[in-house]
Amino acid sequence: MKRGLVEDLPEIEDIHLAHARIRNQIRSTPVLNDPLLDEDLGCRLFCKCENLQRTGAFKFRGASNAIACLGEQRVRGDVATHSSGNHGAALALAARLDGRTAHVVMPENSSRMKIDAVRNYGGQIHFCGATNEDRVVELEKLVRQGMIPVHPYDDARIIAGQGTAALELEQEVPTLEQIITPLGGGGLVSGTAIAAGPWGVQVYAVEPEGAADTVASLQQGSIIDGFSPDTIADGLRALVGVRNFHVISAQVKQVFTVSDDDIRKAMILFWQRLKILIEPSSATVIAAVRNHPDIFAGRKVGALISGGNIHPTEWLKLTAAGADS
Amino acid sequence: MKRGLVEDLPEIEDIHLAHARIRNQIRSTPVLNDPLLDEDLGCRLFCKCENLQRTGAFKFRGASNAIACLGEQRVRGDVATHSSGNHGAALALAARLDGRTAHVVMPENSSRMKIDAVRNYGGQIHFCGATNEDRVVELEKLVRQGMIPVHPYDDARIIAGQGTAALELEQEVPTLEQIITPLGGGGLVSGTAIAAGPWGVQVYAVEPEGAADTVASLQQGSIIDGFSPDTIADGLRALVGVRNFHVISAQVKQVFTVSDDDIRKAMILFWQRLKILIEPSSATVIAAVRNHPDIFAGRKVGALISGGNIHPTEWLKLTAAGADS
Repeated sequence: MKRGLVEDLPEIEDIHLAHARIRNQIRSTPVLNDPLLDEDLGCRLFCKCENLQRTGAFKFRGASNAIACLGEQRVRGDVATHSSGNHGAALALAARLDGRTAHVVMPENSSRMKIDAVRNYGGQIHFCGATNEDRVVELEKLVRQGMIPVHPYDDARIIAGQGTAALELEQEVPTLEQIITPLGGGGLVSGTAIAAGPWGVQVYAVEPEGAADTVASLQQGSIIDGFSPDTIADGLRALVGVRNFHVISAQVKQVFTVSDDDIRKAMILFWQRLKILIEPSSATVIAAVRNHPDIFAGRKVGALISGGNIHPTEWLKLTAAGADS
Repeated sequence: MKRGLVEDLPEIEDIHLAHARIRNQIRSTPVLNDPLLDEDLGCRLFCKCENLQRTGAFKFRGASNAIACLGEQRVRGDVATHSSGNHGAALALAARLDGRTAHVVMPENSSRMKIDAVRNYGGQIHFCGATNEDRVVELEKLVRQGMIPVHPYDDARIIAGQGTAALELEQEVPTLEQIITPLGGGGLVSGTAIAAGPWGVQVYAVEPEGAADTVASLQQGSIIDGFSPDTIADGLRALVGVRNFHVISAQVKQVFTVSDDDIRKAMILFWQRLKILIEPSSATVIAAVRNHPDIFAGRKVGALISGGNIHPTEWLKLTAAGADS
């Protein structure tokens, strides 16, 4: 672990250790290329399909590593988090597989599908009000009762776990020149950037225009506050974390923004070419590559397809809007 | 090629040759296992995801091999077929990649999605009436004009191509004990059975109850006629082919039937566990494994997931019926 401005940043060795810990539990997800999609995009795109990861998102990597670290340190007990999205479901399954329970604080107005996912993977839900303060208060209550908090992204174990996707991608397509990931809280991109260091590929990230807090923070030189996300990419509404921002500032070449319309069109294109439904968050990377031939044309690009947790009904609703525009 | 009761049956060497011909053009599809799906089914299921094959179905393997064989034999010219489904789209792309055009005879009432698929992959559509005779007459007209017919399944080159999926599965999971595939015309299962010979796994197949012509033909000892399919599994409505029936009779351990309701429930289960939409045809194998713990419990089973060409709207329509029942 690196000690500097920001404590507890993982290094490349920590990502290798994370992979050794979790490799028997996670799925080594496929890397898909499609020549017709390449024609559409003007580059060779290698999609690391974390939408096919267990629990339907890369989040299971970080959650599995965090839980495995607790086991190595002989820390017993249940874990708690306040992510209502993919991290909640991932932590629920990772905890259950280790004989623990994950307690997940969720707003009462969470979608049925998200509630069901956490429950199906064995998590225990604690409903709270809709504000951020409500969630923090409820989580603190659980921590005072002795539960171990596991932050969705601003945590060295989580960052190291998320970085394992890039390690696998490097093993499969070592000749990549560039790699691009979605950016919400920054767990995936910071893990990817650390993994990509010795590999030497350029790392890019994408935010929705309606949740471009990292772009604003990079311009300001520090993390902004007073941020109100407004985007269909529900997985990318989080404010960038401290550790994550530190890594992004130092190691990510550029952060793009894409509109919700770009995202909708990319969801449709991905389905047409690969017959796979992806979340809006995942589609940001396709949209950014499509918008930036200046950077990606003719290159070998790795794309982290972050998750596939979208109900077909919701996918149709979102893409119908995309087809009209 | 084996010469016997039925001429032009491929042998294992033909499948290896087919793989060598097509491997740079097809996608080596991922094999996915999900421990929670295994809990549901009571066995270890390894899904060879041909729904992620190019054109969205295993059919691209056989079509690519048939076209490559024409090239080796220096046979020039366009090809023709009368499959309106996945074979039509697959042949369209395989032909285009070899600088040919595929002419696909389709009934005027074909779905928009199937018409678009053939056109998007470069095929030329010849509309005809809705009866089988209409299709045959229209195809014969094209053949008289000099086009080369490529049958969707009763063809040694096609059977050898389809068998390459099982070769890849053997390389990835050599310890499988059983393998199960959907059965329509019999291209996939006959290729799989020939590939599985030296490997030593037991081969099973599944038909929808409403298209169980092979089960009836096996009982009778010869291919039945006067067959009217009625099932949601649109990819499995074809009558078993002569070469295919010959291989199935000799080498397939058992052919199961599953109801359309079983298929709907299996489509839902597969989506819940793997977040992938599959065609009803593909879901038959999940349904059969679920219905037959007497045969599959505790075993390592390979499942050929044959295709994913279903529009989310259609998937929702079909599975809503499954959820009610």
